[in-house]
Amino acid sequence: MSNLRIPGPTPCPEEVLAEMSRQMINHRGPEFARLMESVTAKLKIICQTKNDVLILTGAGTGGLEAAVVNTLSPRDKVLAISIGVFGDRFASIAQEFGAEVIPLQFEWGKAADPKTVRQALEVNPDIKAVLVTHNETSTGVTNNLEEISTLVNEKGKLLLVDAVSSLSSIDLPIDKWHLDVVVSASQKGWMVPPGLAIITMSQKAWQANQNAKMPCFYWDLAKAKSYLEKGQTPWTPAISLFFALDRALDMILQEGLENVFNRHAHIAQKTREGLKAMGIKLFADPEHASNTVTSALIPEGIDGKKLLKTLREKYDIVLSGGQQKLEGKIFRIGHMGWVSDKDIDEALDGLRRALSELRG
Amino acid sequence: MSNLRIPGPTPCPEEVLAEMSRQMINHRGPEFARLMESVTAKLKIICQTKNDVLILTGAGTGGLEAAVVNTLSPRDKVLAISIGVFGDRFASIAQEFGAEVIPLQFEWGKAADPKTVRQALEVNPDIKAVLVTHNETSTGVTNNLEEISTLVNEKGKLLLVDAVSSLSSIDLPIDKWHLDVVVSASQKGWMVPPGLAIITMSQKAWQANQNAKMPCFYWDLAKAKSYLEKGQTPWTPAISLFFALDRALDMILQEGLENVFNRHAHIAQKTREGLKAMGIKLFADPEHASNTVTSALIPEGIDGKKLLKTLREKYDIVLSGGQQKLEGKIFRIGHMGWVSDKDIDEALDGLRRALSELRG
Repeated sequence: MSNLRIPGPTPCPEEVLAEMSRQMINHRGPEFARLMESVTAKLKIICQTKNDVLILTGAGTGGLEAAVVNTLSPRDKVLAISIGVFGDRFASIAQEFGAEVIPLQFEWGKAADPKTVRQALEVNPDIKAVLVTHNETSTGVTNNLEEISTLVNEKGKLLLVDAVSSLSSIDLPIDKWHLDVVVSASQKGWMVPPGLAIITMSQKAWQANQNAKMPCFYWDLAKAKSYLEKGQTPWTPAISLFFALDRALDMILQEGLENVFNRHAHIAQKTREGLKAMGIKLFADPEHASNTVTSALIPEGIDGKKLLKTLREKYDIVLSGGQQKLEGKIFRIGHMGWVSDKDIDEALDGLRRALSELRG
Repeated sequence: MSNLRIPGPTPCPEEVLAEMSRQMINHRGPEFARLMESVTAKLKIICQTKNDVLILTGAGTGGLEAAVVNTLSPRDKVLAISIGVFGDRFASIAQEFGAEVIPLQFEWGKAADPKTVRQALEVNPDIKAVLVTHNETSTGVTNNLEEISTLVNEKGKLLLVDAVSSLSSIDLPIDKWHLDVVVSASQKGWMVPPGLAIITMSQKAWQANQNAKMPCFYWDLAKAKSYLEKGQTPWTPAISLFFALDRALDMILQEGLENVFNRHAHIAQKTREGLKAMGIKLFADPEHASNTVTSALIPEGIDGKKLLKTLREKYDIVLSGGQQKLEGKIFRIGHMGWVSDKDIDEALDGLRRALSELRG
């Protein structure tokens, strides 16, 4: 088995994988209703919220699309904060569905500057909603979401949060921070294979939903909420992933939320220090370095593709390269969900060997 | 283990379920690329097509949404043939995304009448596309798709087909019948858990795609096609379901397509005859009764809900009730995918006992 150290899909514990091979059940029957109830209750604890939590069959990007089309109308003005690939993607979705997107882009590797966000909100008083990425997987940067949320709430705007690679791994108190819509996905810190998006909706978000005019069928959250009341989903759900999620949520709750967050913080620090000790330069602003994914510059004189290939083929360690303009410039180590000190020790050790081998 | 005889999700063979519990791999790496290639090649054989076959992470309804938004523009005139719940759903999707939908509804339990379809096409020469359900799961009726397709092609219209509960179980030669877009879903005849939609696109469909203006991000098939060229999907795929699908496709090919179709025909006939022998009236027009799901009237004096509950709790047999206006009037027995004579014998036997028990 490879040491899969990409920022999702993440390795899944054996107990979770075992659930994946359970036989099918009727998704309109009592057994599935109990499963829905169980999963939803546990999700609310981990999401630290009393808001509605809905589960959609699809990738995280589907969850982002759901966030947009359920709360906005064409021509709505939207401030799209972006610090990387996934911030840009969120903006593109809003644009595709006809929102008037005001992009607010920050240098990749840096976090969004709350002062600049405040200015943008003041210059454009008719903004309806703000899109923001909590943890930018492409650069390994975590935004100061609490501060951004305070600003957005002061102005009475709706806040849509991409927390795909942070929720369940990094502290994200949804109610305390007044986050209207928060999206995550099963293959990240949740320790479950990909295929489910998780989305929370505040009262303010539901109010926006009533007037939202973007076309919306598969991702219809009002429908999802009404089906949830009878323990169902509007369309056939990925049942196996619900089995797996239920088990994974037990594991998270058993470890304890605080402990899970601390483990991620510890592992991230260990990763950063290990890389620095090897003379590798970190890419992300150290003030905002992510606890779920670490980005680092490919050392000078090293071919990034060759490095990843050597790691994969010789050491069975799978890391990620950079995306878009960071391709060939950085590599990324994922450390969210089911990850231990040993996984990181092995990854760093392999990296050390591969680098020395490539340097000849 | 229950005898799960609903029209999807269907029971999965042990070999397929075993694949579900495999550990995660990098969805941007060579192993997944080989998997995509393998699955796609096998799908083309089973779909009897040289058209592009794309796999989306989502339910069948997501596949229907993809069919609509990738080929149509708001205000396009669309003829929506409907013989039940899923025909209506296809129409609703087109309507939600702004198409001008001309509904063409037939009595539930009957197939669409090709003559009426021809008339509708002649009365509305500016129709751009026709939506049709091949096999209507809610009523247990299979439309005469070949004839409908001939009419639609004569008029040069685009044909979008919901084949969710027929493709891989009922003969559906996509190229021979000139079907532009065909949608299916993993939890039906494919013997795989739910979570993947399968969609084929003809050259004519790709031409329509170039001018299609409905908003489309997650379901973007042009993007899916371009990613497929590098053995990837645009968004993180439900990897476990790809593992399972690959194995299930092997099983279908091993049995032989013709044999699979014949088995379904045989099992369906056996089911219908068994029900009739019990004095139960079939719901679907016998001329067009489906080979994947059989619908029957709930016998007089029997409470449908109680019947299903008794079957489930006492005999471990799970059947489906009727949907929408057929609720409380019919029940349905699914027999697609992994189904044998024994499964049907057991289901019919249980039904016999439950009925005699309820009659007291």
